[in-house]
Amino acid sequence: MPQYNAKVYVTLKPSILDPQGRTVERALSHLGQSNVSGVRVGKYIELQLTGERGDVEAQLKDMAENVLSNPIMEDVKWEVEEAAQ
Amino acid sequence: MPQYNAKVYVTLKPSILDPQGRTVERALSHLGQSNVSGVRVGKYIELQLTGERGDVEAQLKDMAENVLSNPIMEDVKWEVEEAAQ
Repeated sequence: MPQYNAKVYVTLKPSILDPQGRTVERALSHLGQSNVSGVRVGKYIELQLTGERGDVEAQLKDMAENVLSNPIMEDVKWEVEEAAQ
Repeated sequence: MPQYNAKVYVTLKPSILDPQGRTVERALSHLGQSNVSGVRVGKYIELQLTGERGDVEAQLKDMAENVLSNPIMEDVKWEVEEAAQ
């Protein structure tokens, strides 16, 4: 069965406050990096899947939208590529 | 001053155990997604920088390696692109 590497990027929706990002931004500012703004902290998930490409893509979409992210508060993107044999 | 969008990807080094990833993997398995393996949970940070391209790239490298990640336990990658005006 072919194996695939998937990457999933989960970010808070723009309208949701991100206290972790604000804290990072303030910390950077205290360190003198005052030209940095708009820091948002999300999740980056790597995983492997086995199966046929079409099945894997449909399964990944379902997992990304319904398990790995919270559709009320978060946006999610994903990509999948065949693993090197 | 030009503005740049940066993305920073922080992952645990392969030799470091990832209990969060293991938990996600087990949860997926309980949901019937038994063809999923190797789940690793990292951070995905978005930020904006203003400045000249060369300065911004050097600053981002420094921040990514020394502030946004822990070089003992984590790997970090980043990319930067000019923001649409």
